[in-house]
Amino acid sequence: VSASAAAAASMRTVVVRFADADAAVDAAAYHIATAGFIGVSRRTQRSDAAAAAALSTDSLILSVLARSLSLSLSLRSSVTVLTFTVCVCAIMAMSDLSTPKTTSPFLPSSSQLRLSSKLHLSNQFRHLHLLPPPLHTTSISKISCSVSQNNQAPVAVQENGSVKTKKECYGVFCLTYDLKAEEETKSWKKMINIAVSGAAGMISNHLLFKLASGSVFGPDQPIALKLLGSERSIQALEGVAMELEDSLFPLLREVDIGTDPYEVFQDVDWALLIGAKPRGPGMERAALLDINGQIFAEQGKALNAVASPNVKVLVVGNPCNTNALICLKNAPNIPAKNFHALTRLDENRAKCQLALKAGVFYDKVSNMTIWGNHSTTQVPDFLNARINGRPVKEVITDHKWLEEGFTESVQKRGGLLIQKWGRSSAASTAVSIVDAIKSLVTPTPEGDWFSTGVYTNGNPYGIAEDLVFSMPCRSKGDGDYELVKDVEIDDYLRNRIAKSEAELLAEKKCVAHLTGDGIAFCDLGPVDTMLPGEV
Amino acid sequence: VSASAAAAASMRTVVVRFADADAAVDAAAYHIATAGFIGVSRRTQRSDAAAAAALSTDSLILSVLARSLSLSLSLRSSVTVLTFTVCVCAIMAMSDLSTPKTTSPFLPSSSQLRLSSKLHLSNQFRHLHLLPPPLHTTSISKISCSVSQNNQAPVAVQENGSVKTKKECYGVFCLTYDLKAEEETKSWKKMINIAVSGAAGMISNHLLFKLASGSVFGPDQPIALKLLGSERSIQALEGVAMELEDSLFPLLREVDIGTDPYEVFQDVDWALLIGAKPRGPGMERAALLDINGQIFAEQGKALNAVASPNVKVLVVGNPCNTNALICLKNAPNIPAKNFHALTRLDENRAKCQLALKAGVFYDKVSNMTIWGNHSTTQVPDFLNARINGRPVKEVITDHKWLEEGFTESVQKRGGLLIQKWGRSSAASTAVSIVDAIKSLVTPTPEGDWFSTGVYTNGNPYGIAEDLVFSMPCRSKGDGDYELVKDVEIDDYLRNRIAKSEAELLAEKKCVAHLTGDGIAFCDLGPVDTMLPGEV
Repeated sequence: VSASAAAAASMRTVVVRFADADAAVDAAAYHIATAGFIGVSRRTQRSDAAAAAALSTDSLILSVLARSLSLSLSLRSSVTVLTFTVCVCAIMAMSDLSTPKTTSPFLPSSSQLRLSSKLHLSNQFRHLHLLPPPLHTTSISKISCSVSQNNQAPVAVQENGSVKTKKECYGVFCLTYDLKAEEETKSWKKMINIAVSGAAGMISNHLLFKLASGSVFGPDQPIALKLLGSERSIQALEGVAMELEDSLFPLLREVDIGTDPYEVFQDVDWALLIGAKPRGPGMERAALLDINGQIFAEQGKALNAVASPNVKVLVVGNPCNTNALICLKNAPNIPAKNFHALTRLDENRAKCQLALKAGVFYDKVSNMTIWGNHSTTQVPDFLNARINGRPVKEVITDHKWLEEGFTESVQKRGGLLIQKWGRSSAASTAVSIVDAIKSLVTPTPEGDWFSTGVYTNGNPYGIAEDLVFSMPCRSKGDGDYELVKDVEIDDYLRNRIAKSEAELLAEKKCVAHLTGDGIAFCDLGPVDTMLPGEV
Repeated sequence: VSASAAAAASMRTVVVRFADADAAVDAAAYHIATAGFIGVSRRTQRSDAAAAAALSTDSLILSVLARSLSLSLSLRSSVTVLTFTVCVCAIMAMSDLSTPKTTSPFLPSSSQLRLSSKLHLSNQFRHLHLLPPPLHTTSISKISCSVSQNNQAPVAVQENGSVKTKKECYGVFCLTYDLKAEEETKSWKKMINIAVSGAAGMISNHLLFKLASGSVFGPDQPIALKLLGSERSIQALEGVAMELEDSLFPLLREVDIGTDPYEVFQDVDWALLIGAKPRGPGMERAALLDINGQIFAEQGKALNAVASPNVKVLVVGNPCNTNALICLKNAPNIPAKNFHALTRLDENRAKCQLALKAGVFYDKVSNMTIWGNHSTTQVPDFLNARINGRPVKEVITDHKWLEEGFTESVQKRGGLLIQKWGRSSAASTAVSIVDAIKSLVTPTPEGDWFSTGVYTNGNPYGIAEDLVFSMPCRSKGDGDYELVKDVEIDDYLRNRIAKSEAELLAEKKCVAHLTGDGIAFCDLGPVDTMLPGEV
């Protein structure tokens, strides 16, 4: 048992997924061969006992699917041991990926080179059968009005004949007002529709009230909030809507709640995608990528189908860069440029840490870039950041701290906060979402920039195309942005950026079945790069 | 056992407390006589068994105190049964009041007239011995800087020689900036100091970020936040301070954290007193009044000693009206007019319910008064409220609903929210605190008013003086207010207001030992008037 535990502890998981059944069948032999090759090249000896133990550790579940051919291939190799197993028509039940028991714990401190690979050949049908079904098939969305709590319909006042009632709404927001007239008298802008997913969660609980108060889009911008939640959270969503009612925000003209993205995203101008499954204890990143990837693929499709064609999408749910990539790939009718992954909290934290070190107030720090992935491979760029307009390296002479301590202080902030505060940083995350939006709807101050994860499609920094990568951007305040193209990159930065790029490329391969890029091959490497506080 | 349970269920508690030991001794005989008189007047027959059972139900704890004479007197009467017991030198340990076991459950639905009274004679010394000691003796306040987390002091940059470090602060706020210069360049107002108690709680978690963002005091008002927490919450306070750092609010110039109100309230211009012990299951209102009263007496003394002489105080912790009264009585150097009890959430909810009923948007409802106590005896005034400038009764013709359903819909809102959302309404409470502050620092719109619990000292409505009572007020925006004096009160309103007034008078008698008014006599009546959602 201890031998198998040690073997399990040193394993690295490679997962292959297919977007459709034909591809799975066609590719099976090739991938078995590839896997075999990897295995053979490292083949040494391994005891039968260890192999058997490793097999049981994996808890492969045999499950023959009626409508599709599925195929799982498991192989393991290490410097000293190797086993190679093909299980045709066996599949690791996807539902088990959400529990720790089927995935092997991984100890990144292991110094031995060991490798274990699993191939999961599956297809879209399987998702329908074994996964929690995608949101649009989950249920009819539940939208309710608080007036029903009083057991009476709202009484439409016979005043100018302009007041009507409508149904897809919550409480006092179920009423239709003569908004046009008000817009004229108040010089208000045209109402915008903002969808927020994970709307019953703590980040949203902070964010929604900021949006509704006018502090994000301004005091002349009426808004409608479209709250997307899970079936399980529908009661909590009603509670949120009630609190929004009780807050009497004059700019908040509509609140809708629902569980179906195809309904909730109807005509939205902004989609703030916060909701994601949290990573369970022991869950591997590959599993998290797949589970959350499903959600964002579905939401991308829904946005594509029903949202405003120029909707701006900000992905907060982790892993946010790759989730944003999945989302945009599933929304071909929406410009890829409209999708963002939130790295603003990292930027804000980096500014604060530099200020603290320099002994200045944080508003003196500018031009802060977070490069790459919202993970521990992120690169907070102290080379180009400025303090009181001067290069950071001139102001902070402790360059060892800049190169080693600084990045860590940014990365570990979330974990430290959880330690202190007992929960993750909802309030400051919400503030950073507000900052991210404001950066797009207000002109960037002259000479400064902000960071946001954007689709790479022609960048001057040699970063691989077709990723969502955090980079320095500027905006004219029209909701759009342009890359800042003249940022200096030295070898130190280039090396670090390359690591984050490599990670995003690996994540992308891992979700190819969700982006329409064919066969997923998931090899995320030995180091867990989830930011502390985001497990 | 069922007999004793029934007896217990029908009991009503009367508690007497003394502000000092001499008064206790002097008054003991008088009160025993009084209690005896009440008892005798209702004397009928009661079986010995029932009397014994009732005695055990009360779980009186005999505890002889070394430094004081204490005396507990328990009497019970009902239409059919009566028992009369004197326990000299016995006292129900105050610490037990915080646990349900010593207090009797009360069933307000009991239709029989039954009465039970307990007299607790005690003195200040007892509080020192049996109660959690008052805050200023609890501990040396713990104030820390996040720079210590990095194991290095902030590096003071040699820039203009103006940057210094100071110690009573948190993290990046530990640095002293050349604020005066900035004030001039930015046309900022002079910084104000805002203390928030219960700063690690959920209401504060919403409120602090609103204060820091400038959405309460305006975009030209730099602020310092002074966070008061309990010893137990000091780590969480650090977490809150860290999130405030990471939010980069330019107007937020200082964050201090501590557990000693005498330190935290130093020079504060606003004190938002949110922290209070929550009411444990089965805890009687008398016990809650006493326990929280202690906190607010202490905080009043601290404000009196160290705060700005014109500090504005908003009490949110419940029971907030009486807590505010206790606080102001312990702060004789601060104008009584500066103290407020929060009834704004009730006002906001009342507006929303009227809007919902009338089928109009909530911004059409004005002139909404909450009269009286922030409890179920509160009086949401639909007589004087207006919808689109017209009297509510003209717009909403369902007068039965106005007289019966409306008030209930306001009262039950908090309870309903807890049902839905699984926790109490932190976000909308924070919004209502913001509204309450804004109402004092911005001029009230012509013809409108707002509700706030204020000290009664010359009012045209015949409401007893020397209470904190919610009334219609207007402000010129200078932080001060004046009563609206020409509001019409009909018999319906007068009767309801009288009930809330009677309740506040009873609560006041109950905390006389904390307000310097001598002997506390606590008879809060048979109905539990805590608002649902505030247990």
